Amino acid sequence: MMRNSIFSKLCIHTITTKPWSIEEAITNYAAASIAGISVWRNTLEGRNIKAIGDQIRSHGLEVTSLARGGFFPSTDPAKRLLAIEDNLRAIDEAYALGAPIIVLVCGADPTQSLATSRLQIQDGLHQVLPHAQAAGVKLAIEPLHPMYAGDRSAINTLAQATDMSISLQSEWVGVALDVYHVWWDPHLESEIARCGASGKLLAFHICDWKVNTTDLLNDRGLMGEGCIPVHQIRTWVNQTGFTGLEEVEIFSNHYWSMDQSEYLQKIKIAYQNSFQQNKSDI
Amino acid sequence: MMRNSIFSKLCIHTITTKPWSIEEAITNYAAASIAGISVWRNTLEGRNIKAIGDQIRSHGLEVTSLARGGFFPSTDPAKRLLAIEDNLRAIDEAYALGAPIIVLVCGADPTQSLATSRLQIQDGLHQVLPHAQAAGVKLAIEPLHPMYAGDRSAINTLAQATDMSISLQSEWVGVALDVYHVWWDPHLESEIARCGASGKLLAFHICDWKVNTTDLLNDRGLMGEGCIPVHQIRTWVNQTGFTGLEEVEIFSNHYWSMDQSEYLQKIKIAYQNSFQQNKSDI
Repeated sequence: MMRNSIFSKLCIHTITTKPWSIEEAITNYAAASIAGISVWRNTLEGRNIKAIGDQIRSHGLEVTSLARGGFFPSTDPAKRLLAIEDNLRAIDEAYALGAPIIVLVCGADPTQSLATSRLQIQDGLHQVLPHAQAAGVKLAIEPLHPMYAGDRSAINTLAQATDMSISLQSEWVGVALDVYHVWWDPHLESEIARCGASGKLLAFHICDWKVNTTDLLNDRGLMGEGCIPVHQIRTWVNQTGFTGLEEVEIFSNHYWSMDQSEYLQKIKIAYQNSFQQNKSDI
Repeated sequence: MMRNSIFSKLCIHTITTKPWSIEEAITNYAAASIAGISVWRNTLEGRNIKAIGDQIRSHGLEVTSLARGGFFPSTDPAKRLLAIEDNLRAIDEAYALGAPIIVLVCGADPTQSLATSRLQIQDGLHQVLPHAQAAGVKLAIEPLHPMYAGDRSAINTLAQATDMSISLQSEWVGVALDVYHVWWDPHLESEIARCGASGKLLAFHICDWKVNTTDLLNDRGLMGEGCIPVHQIRTWVNQTGFTGLEEVEIFSNHYWSMDQSEYLQKIKIAYQNSFQQNKSDI
């Protein structure tokens, strides 16, 4: 273990190395001296979740978060109830795993207005927060890029996520910030400061935006491959006093198709290089 | 001509029916009782621009705008100069055509920060505005969807476009609002009101966002095909006192591959239906 190495704050989401099972991810991340793992629920199917949590910790890895809950809005009240139940289950899973945070993709129903979807998100969070508090699990609203406003999330800016987490008046809800979703925001620096100052900044995800993105979902880049000023944003995040891990979350058909051990080495190199500011003017 | 029909405010961008030459577009739009045409510069190559303007007017069509200028930012000063020259040429073309407005895709250079690109946009506009004023042509900053922040525009919200056009202190610069780029904005209603109240709302473009968008550039939908509350946004626009035409601007590999006369009929039907509010809650 190399807790004082440059990788001592590096966490990887299991979806980043999607071809690996949770067991393979644990073994390979630990062997590569990665500090943390964010676990996607699909990898837990058919597993004893508590045993997976123990296995992660026995390999010296930190469980950073469970991904993902949310998807609250629907015009159909029965579906909204199912979403509540699913989020309660996610909280139980996070508790069993020992994950302190659940990342939320809040949802949107394209057949109703964004304003209505936002009210349903607020209501859904309100309903599940007592269970989150009882389990000691925090819920992190992830603002999603506006290109996902159609059906993935009606929360599309950091300001919205911060405002909603403040309005819920619970220390068990906060924000997960992903550079991919927010890098374009003209108010990003001040909004990161505000989110941090209000005690709501719970998680920090990194990757890159490729200039010639070919797929809205699965064409994210490694840090340095695109135009996101990752180090600049990291600096703003750290200035708030954020001490959490930095989570690499990359959906990429390209990277999923390559040898995942080679890819893991690429991630480490890209992470290391991301500390070199590559844009002189920012 | 049916100036009092439901189509009396309907304008179409030539790019919408890309397979047609400018002459075919003029003839077919006029025959279909469309009120206006927004001309893309590519259609003018090798043509006498003044004669095309005369041809448009003699067919009873209004020239709504010329598309497009902009693309000011670059790390390379020589390229910034070329952009200035190209925008001056665009102004001359708009003057010759009799187009009152040039729509600007302002540009972004992915190898520098968005903040720097914005300063270069502001500087570029400052340099070309005297020529625009002399020609009697207004420049309309079009805020582009954040998914184009990498290399197409560093102006990604209506608020930014309004602020920049106000800061330039010239009545010859304003804003072109396209529902595709701004529909997700939580401040859209108030920002439309502010843009209108400051006298900056110059143009209104319509289309739709398809929930399962497959291409970042060329998969726009016809009004009603997606999740944009077009009529709601139109209402907000009209409440500012906006009296311009409503411009259908659709980039779509799907629609470009079909018979363009059939497509034109589909556009008219979609336009007509767009006045029926289809979301009860907004």
